[in-house]
Amino acid sequence: MQDVADRAGVSLTTVSFVVNDTKPVAAATRARVEAAMTALGYRRNVLARALASRRSRIVALAFPALSHRLGSTALAVVTAAASAANERGFNVVLWPVDDAAQLEDYVAGGLVDGVLLMEVTADDPRVPVLQRLGTPFGLVGRTAAPDGLAFVDMDFAGMVAAGLDHLLGLGHQRVALFLGELGPALAGYGPVARTEAAYLDEARRRGLDPVVVRSAQDPRSGHVAAARLVADHPGVTAVLALNEAALYGFVNGLVGGGRSVPGSMSVLGLATSAEAISTADPPVSAVVAPGPELGRHSVHMLLDRLADPAAAVVHELLPGELHLAGSTAPPPILPPRTRHPMEGSDA
Amino acid sequence: MQDVADRAGVSLTTVSFVVNDTKPVAAATRARVEAAMTALGYRRNVLARALASRRSRIVALAFPALSHRLGSTALAVVTAAASAANERGFNVVLWPVDDAAQLEDYVAGGLVDGVLLMEVTADDPRVPVLQRLGTPFGLVGRTAAPDGLAFVDMDFAGMVAAGLDHLLGLGHQRVALFLGELGPALAGYGPVARTEAAYLDEARRRGLDPVVVRSAQDPRSGHVAAARLVADHPGVTAVLALNEAALYGFVNGLVGGGRSVPGSMSVLGLATSAEAISTADPPVSAVVAPGPELGRHSVHMLLDRLADPAAAVVHELLPGELHLAGSTAPPPILPPRTRHPMEGSDA
Repeated sequence: MQDVADRAGVSLTTVSFVVNDTKPVAAATRARVEAAMTALGYRRNVLARALASRRSRIVALAFPALSHRLGSTALAVVTAAASAANERGFNVVLWPVDDAAQLEDYVAGGLVDGVLLMEVTADDPRVPVLQRLGTPFGLVGRTAAPDGLAFVDMDFAGMVAAGLDHLLGLGHQRVALFLGELGPALAGYGPVARTEAAYLDEARRRGLDPVVVRSAQDPRSGHVAAARLVADHPGVTAVLALNEAALYGFVNGLVGGGRSVPGSMSVLGLATSAEAISTADPPVSAVVAPGPELGRHSVHMLLDRLADPAAAVVHELLPGELHLAGSTAPPPILPPRTRHPMEGSDA
Repeated sequence: MQDVADRAGVSLTTVSFVVNDTKPVAAATRARVEAAMTALGYRRNVLARALASRRSRIVALAFPALSHRLGSTALAVVTAAASAANERGFNVVLWPVDDAAQLEDYVAGGLVDGVLLMEVTADDPRVPVLQRLGTPFGLVGRTAAPDGLAFVDMDFAGMVAAGLDHLLGLGHQRVALFLGELGPALAGYGPVARTEAAYLDEARRRGLDPVVVRSAQDPRSGHVAAARLVADHPGVTAVLALNEAALYGFVNGLVGGGRSVPGSMSVLGLATSAEAISTADPPVSAVVAPGPELGRHSVHMLLDRLADPAAAVVHELLPGELHLAGSTAPPPILPPRTRHPMEGSDA
């Protein structure tokens, strides 16, 4: 519509009045608008233009509706994706699809120019469907072997490295990893698998003794995991924690197990949502998940591909940002169970 | 597409192959599909059908992108809305629009059959725009005077009453209300204004002495508000808390101020998101926000209206569900500051 308004030398609102016939517009003005629309090949509205150009300027965000709860970062991804698409004149539709067959039905409807897949699994069954249908698509996340696929994902390995840099820089020598346990629906879910692999790799590279603790994704299970960590690995003085839903329980479980945070145990969230960070009390330091960037960059990836199908396939990994809020400090000097309380700072 | 598949006696997948020309299909089968499409007036795809019927079968969810952070309930609203629309053969597009002029531009594009407005304010400037354009719309929330407008909202008054029923049933006689302070962008934001009005009304009706505490929407401010409540109103033994972002800080601030929860102070969340409930530690009892119902019901309201513009205007208020998790208990028998610790239960 902006092109019509520009060519006719009127406001968008005036064009809207003419198109929708909602308000009287001076005959000369109306004629100018209609001439501009004709000259620009603008028929009735975006639908007509879409049909004429075989482009709907609509892309879909496909996410699982039933198989698991979307994390707190998902809202940021979705809203940022919509904003980025709108800035380029595209609309984003939401497709709650739980299986590949359902996705195929949606695509076959012909509404969208392309699809972004959220909550990608290691061997995602939606990928071959989109390849077979010839639909342009991109991943918000990654499969296990994403070589030929366009994707934007969080840099889990980079976040693990940044977290270890911070904690080792404070003097910690035993840093554990706390992960969420996944049900069968999420077996092979990228974030957990990649974070664990990166942690084991970094531990080997840096000569650290790796300790991995897991719990279901709820606070009560976090308590149990923290108690187990304290009992089984008394030498551990810091934890990288990916399991956001269990995080508050894990921190309280550490305290219940005789540790103070950060006095005798540092906790650093990994890929923690900005939402969780902003409501946590006591505050939690974390490598924060780049939710809005994930939404924005994945939309640009897909729209660039629509504009130039021959363009190189994008593989983009987004870093997290280290947010220090007081849950990390240098390790205690005495063994944790006998030392005197000490308040450290993040400096 | 299902109607084409049914009429041709083939699977949806086969229809998709024919329409998109993505796989070889036997000539006889193809002919049957094409005959069914012709008979049913199905042109190329949903776009063609939309243009022919002057119905796009797309509705928009409009939300503010910049003016404030969407609450944790928003993700449930958005995803449930998409699912409900899809079940009825509609698509949901997301419109991140911060002002009425921008909304007008979007509507003028002609893409959608109707609009749902999220994060509705008391005197929402988007409403007159949609009325002037003649666009079917509904509110997820309410304006101050929503008489002629279709809306689905949470029943804040009902949630306050349910919360008071629970706390008074436990024996509390002084129940305070904890609210979020709103910046200028949210002056007149319905949930806070309606909850406060309902609380003052119920307090009068039930002969209670009302106490309202407010803080900015962050945990640190919650601490300060809790300390102020304990110092200024020592007789208060229970709190209804609407300010979710400050909730963890508020609870910890109570403990820091010498109260145990629920031993000497009960805390009951109001319209708290299922997300916050599921990650809270220690667990928080609350009247839980009906996020998914809000998304589903508002979509049905709008689609019913599109199907029958003469239908009665819907005004629907959705109740919250009381979720007891251990942060409420009978009030202490002795004055809170001098009594012995007592652990109560929710019974």
